[in-house]
Amino acid sequence: MRIDVKKCAAILKEQDNILILTHAHPDGDTLGCGFGLCRALIKTGKKARVINADDIPKKYNYLFEDMPQYDFKENYIVAVDIATENLLGALADTYASKINLCIDHHGTNTEYAEYLLLEETAAACEIIYKVILELGADIDKKTADCLYTGISTDTGCFRYASSTSSTYRIAADLIDKGADNGYINRVMFETKTKTYARLEKLAIEDMELYCEDQVAIMAVTQEMYAKTGSNEQETEALAPITRQIEGVEIGITIREKPDGTCKASFRTFEKVNAAELAKAFGGGGHPQAAACRMSCSVEEAKKMLVEKCGEFLK
Amino acid sequence: MRIDVKKCAAILKEQDNILILTHAHPDGDTLGCGFGLCRALIKTGKKARVINADDIPKKYNYLFEDMPQYDFKENYIVAVDIATENLLGALADTYASKINLCIDHHGTNTEYAEYLLLEETAAACEIIYKVILELGADIDKKTADCLYTGISTDTGCFRYASSTSSTYRIAADLIDKGADNGYINRVMFETKTKTYARLEKLAIEDMELYCEDQVAIMAVTQEMYAKTGSNEQETEALAPITRQIEGVEIGITIREKPDGTCKASFRTFEKVNAAELAKAFGGGGHPQAAACRMSCSVEEAKKMLVEKCGEFLK
Repeated sequence: MRIDVKKCAAILKEQDNILILTHAHPDGDTLGCGFGLCRALIKTGKKARVINADDIPKKYNYLFEDMPQYDFKENYIVAVDIATENLLGALADTYASKINLCIDHHGTNTEYAEYLLLEETAAACEIIYKVILELGADIDKKTADCLYTGISTDTGCFRYASSTSSTYRIAADLIDKGADNGYINRVMFETKTKTYARLEKLAIEDMELYCEDQVAIMAVTQEMYAKTGSNEQETEALAPITRQIEGVEIGITIREKPDGTCKASFRTFEKVNAAELAKAFGGGGHPQAAACRMSCSVEEAKKMLVEKCGEFLK
Repeated sequence: MRIDVKKCAAILKEQDNILILTHAHPDGDTLGCGFGLCRALIKTGKKARVINADDIPKKYNYLFEDMPQYDFKENYIVAVDIATENLLGALADTYASKINLCIDHHGTNTEYAEYLLLEETAAACEIIYKVILELGADIDKKTADCLYTGISTDTGCFRYASSTSSTYRIAADLIDKGADNGYINRVMFETKTKTYARLEKLAIEDMELYCEDQVAIMAVTQEMYAKTGSNEQETEALAPITRQIEGVEIGITIREKPDGTCKASFRTFEKVNAAELAKAFGGGGHPQAAACRMSCSVEEAKKMLVEKCGEFLK
């Protein structure tokens, strides 16, 4: 059942012992939503906890390291920034059928939860911000850091066309409430680990153009991880690079998995709908950023992707 | 004489045939200020014109290409985003001693103009925005594009710690007035020409770490321009790259001039004041971004810079 911000806050007010689920391969938006909402709920006197199927990259530690840890049997289950149940990863088996409330910004949300608050904002954290205001909970510095992190990371630090004036105004409010925008953006966008810097160099060398230079494909292999000391967690920042060369309409990053299959991430401009492109391979996402799994080798994936891109560019 | 926004607007209201000077090697902020203010003045029925000592990079064409071109003998001369007279470049001889009003955000401004409106905002365009509001001039879509461009480019698209909540709110207002933030950020931050992409690859290969990996220096030589088909205008985007490796406190880009001398650009974090570092070589700028000229070869510059950085890091 679709609900609005007011109803969502009213529902949360009546619940306690709330378990918040974030999506697998967590990013700043799902974690910012999870820990931001969790902190606000705790402020209103409730018990709440955030869980994730995967390890949370270290750079996000400030989102939660000072938080009280509550142990409880969950009474109410909330999913944040999760478009489909399979994005729960390893948590899907236990929780997929039990989700009471979903707060999300993906137009592709499959309405798997009992209640769905869906607004197609640039970042899901914008919706959480509105829910917290409606809850009447105090947004302290740490909560502001969480929500700012989600907004900044999901908009490429306010670069993407998806950012609206409302996105900027919420960010301004969060800075006034103490969000450390300088630190957060430095960590999220201005800091390359030495291992990542080495990986990026190899990946850029590997990048090739196809379809009259309208498609850029970069592959990251297990061999590259071994060579550079890097790992898949560090590849998130590579995806935008593929789309940055003049004339490129579709940028694709292919990541080889340990079992030899791969995951492809798409970044596009207005001309091509990335979510539809990903859908052709069983994936999904946003109009300009999407992803899919491919049960084949990097080389086979490249071939299939180039062919499909050719069709989309016609 | 130092003045405030109110007084600045009052002065401009009384003037006509206004010549607006922007700084040499123009960037988004000086051009956004110049063309934004020019458009607003024209809206209030005045004649105004913007000039620059150097060629304006093509990507900025949308700032001015539809503007009426007025021919007049200037009655009043305004400098925007220009900290010192020598930043006028080739315009200095004619205008340096004749500047009536300067609107600037550099704490290092030498107060060379008759009137100075100085606020240490993240971008000078924030001040121009306030002046235009005070003038009571309409901010149309094109003016909003100009001001947004200045703010976005001077804050690294809202990344840098210099961005305040006010910076974000002004950006939000400009988006509401029609600024095409998606397009502008795509052009300014997400588009690499093929020649730039080749240059960037070479420059990253050249980059080396010094002072226990706290200093990264990247040199761009005339030979690299020749090899890649790129040019100095395209090097602006290289400077932030030097500061992005974990642990680096000072990032330096050295650009070789055709005469064999060089220009060094500094990017730092809180630990080191870039303006003071640049000052040691006769340059200047902001606490975290500054530059200087050096009348020596790239290799000699490297040596001197590493030594000086060592002192600053102690």
